[in-house]
Amino acid sequence: MIKANDSNRKSWISVPKNSDFPIQNIPFGVFKKANKEICLGTRIGDTAIDLSQLNRLNYFKGIPLKKDVFEKDNLNEFLKQTKTVWRLVRDRIAEIFDIENQMDALHQKQALHPINTTQMMMPVKVGDYTDFYSSKQHAHNVGCMFRDPKKALLPNWLHMPVAYHGRASSIIPSGTNIHRPAGQQLLEAYNQPVFGPTKLLDFELEMAFITGQGKPLGEHISTSEAENYIFGMCIFNDWSARDLQKWEYVPLGPFLGKNFASSISPWIVTLDALEPFRIAGEVQKPDTLPYLKFRGRKNLDIHLEVKISSEAFKPTLVSRTNSKHLYWNIFQQLTHHSINGCNINAGDIMASGTISGEKPNSYGSLLELTWNGTKPITMPDGTKRKFLNDYDTVHMTACAKAKKYQIGFGEVKTKILPAKKTSFPLNY
Amino acid sequence: MIKANDSNRKSWISVPKNSDFPIQNIPFGVFKKANKEICLGTRIGDTAIDLSQLNRLNYFKGIPLKKDVFEKDNLNEFLKQTKTVWRLVRDRIAEIFDIENQMDALHQKQALHPINTTQMMMPVKVGDYTDFYSSKQHAHNVGCMFRDPKKALLPNWLHMPVAYHGRASSIIPSGTNIHRPAGQQLLEAYNQPVFGPTKLLDFELEMAFITGQGKPLGEHISTSEAENYIFGMCIFNDWSARDLQKWEYVPLGPFLGKNFASSISPWIVTLDALEPFRIAGEVQKPDTLPYLKFRGRKNLDIHLEVKISSEAFKPTLVSRTNSKHLYWNIFQQLTHHSINGCNINAGDIMASGTISGEKPNSYGSLLELTWNGTKPITMPDGTKRKFLNDYDTVHMTACAKAKKYQIGFGEVKTKILPAKKTSFPLNY
Repeated sequence: MIKANDSNRKSWISVPKNSDFPIQNIPFGVFKKANKEICLGTRIGDTAIDLSQLNRLNYFKGIPLKKDVFEKDNLNEFLKQTKTVWRLVRDRIAEIFDIENQMDALHQKQALHPINTTQMMMPVKVGDYTDFYSSKQHAHNVGCMFRDPKKALLPNWLHMPVAYHGRASSIIPSGTNIHRPAGQQLLEAYNQPVFGPTKLLDFELEMAFITGQGKPLGEHISTSEAENYIFGMCIFNDWSARDLQKWEYVPLGPFLGKNFASSISPWIVTLDALEPFRIAGEVQKPDTLPYLKFRGRKNLDIHLEVKISSEAFKPTLVSRTNSKHLYWNIFQQLTHHSINGCNINAGDIMASGTISGEKPNSYGSLLELTWNGTKPITMPDGTKRKFLNDYDTVHMTACAKAKKYQIGFGEVKTKILPAKKTSFPLNY
Repeated sequence: MIKANDSNRKSWISVPKNSDFPIQNIPFGVFKKANKEICLGTRIGDTAIDLSQLNRLNYFKGIPLKKDVFEKDNLNEFLKQTKTVWRLVRDRIAEIFDIENQMDALHQKQALHPINTTQMMMPVKVGDYTDFYSSKQHAHNVGCMFRDPKKALLPNWLHMPVAYHGRASSIIPSGTNIHRPAGQQLLEAYNQPVFGPTKLLDFELEMAFITGQGKPLGEHISTSEAENYIFGMCIFNDWSARDLQKWEYVPLGPFLGKNFASSISPWIVTLDALEPFRIAGEVQKPDTLPYLKFRGRKNLDIHLEVKISSEAFKPTLVSRTNSKHLYWNIFQQLTHHSINGCNINAGDIMASGTISGEKPNSYGSLLELTWNGTKPITMPDGTKRKFLNDYDTVHMTACAKAKKYQIGFGEVKTKILPAKKTSFPLNY
């Protein structure tokens, strides 16, 4: 039993009904205060809590923490601590803010900030970013659309969590607008590629996990050990320019069709907080190779939603699905990643791949929801979407629901701005 | 004219005949001194020079450098300076060690170290690593072996420098041994994958460039601007496990077949030092899209060699080629990488892809040299190589040759150790 998960615990900080951030959550993130200072923090209800300030005020006494572990602008040093330390800190936070306790008014003033006076930043300096492809329905859908529907899954898919490396530097937090990217596209009427803004801009609904300090080069992590090296999770929007991707991706995989941006929700919800939401995944047949076997419940029951809004209409649901649909679980993913001796570091991000459920309205991308543009979605203002328009905003939320509370991830929300105009292509 | 390139300049530090490191080179790197201190440095002949010490002794007076720019264990802060500053520092080093000048004996004792008392370290903390696929002969060879020889180049290849993201964390400096990686392989006799050490371990001979601080997300870099954002180059051995790669790479590209290690030569030779070795590349037909056009000589005439040694025989030449064979030049590569708004940071590494010349003995991988194992190479002890054996060492060298001197890269040298034995696969 993880103490901080006690479902009966209440906080002396008020928590709105159906808040994503009850005292059972205690996520970790980085925020900018009204005075522009950046600090590491957690959140209860609508209050952001400055962890560096709590540490200076000696609230973490007795926990073996490096003195400056919170005096940073990202969580990486904290991620280098062990799971035991992460757990001690989270348990202590639960205790400090438990309704049975209280806090000196001056300390409250020093450490607590109304969330609407803060701005969320990137929680980690991402070392390496890997994107998996672990939803069977998604792989099936893509295979049906672009390859042979009778052989939709490629031969390796049922034997390993297929993955590729992505660009770490272009991962941005919720609230950061992106520009429509430009690149090469092969138009059907031409035999040559043309250059221009993508016409097929899409989101991909994913969840991602953030690692602690893994093992050095040459070592590997078993599925049971993987529990100790995964710190927490966030929502991950793997932006995709389908036309760029289609033209460039053979034979080495996606590149410019993806690396212009990936957006994440800024609060990292710990694996510990998600413990009550463990469920069994789909039985894996054919049987996996021994290194991918595992014991216990390794999938997560997290409700996911995607909404689109624009200047003309409010956020409108376009997909509702669940992370339990992933065929390969996060522990198998991490084990597979390290089985060849690849080293894993604190602050690596590994995303799930698009999460699609079985029903057509539970697909995790517009590519699938509109079946490559053949079934456009009608929005409240009567406009249709095959793919995303300029000034559309994509909102993704994730939430695990218990009887007495819910553990939410907040949202990742990103507005699309038009492609940048530039004389660049002729300026050489 | 770049001052430090003056071909008549000699140094008061002795430089052995045919040294890779005459005073015209002045590469940048990181080394560990006999006393275990790590410092940023350069090299002339067989002398490593501590740049932080020179800076403390005020040798860089007048150059707008942050005081602690050399007080680091990697070059990243220095890479964040402008090309003007890089050039001022290199010119100053040329001046300090010019034979017309001299240095106080105490200063020499403080700043100079015989190279054989030092150990070379990773020169940069790699942000993101990208691998291109820019040798036409290599792409052709792979296409012939694994696809249709009549359509060996895929349709996109002549229109863009195809690339994919690799793993930054597993890039290691010359001298670091690697273990043979294990992973899934589909054996021909089976319908199922098996797990075990790779049987088809290969090198890939590549050159890589290291970037300075590029542009932020949403901006892009033109081919002419690219000159300012490339700091220098190194040799890059992109280790490949062909059996792992073959089974895993559809549809998202190479992953575990590559990310167990990539090895680099530790001295970064500046683009400035390579200026005298600029040549024109192959005329690109069909014509490129405007954003990939460029003016001037953008290819580099650098001689490359790969040797293999083992406990039974000395380094034996297996390939001799030249970086001039690259179809896409480094400026086009960087421009293509950023054309969709992908941000570029100080310390990113971008490798060329395997460099293969037209002749069979100028191919840059064993896959090509032995034509996928069908034409084994006989080594001096009579043993044959289709791919690499345990305890083989791969040596790669690179050298640009002028009339009076040569600009070399030293070498990247890596020994292969057997796969690690472990009970791991059943320990879940």
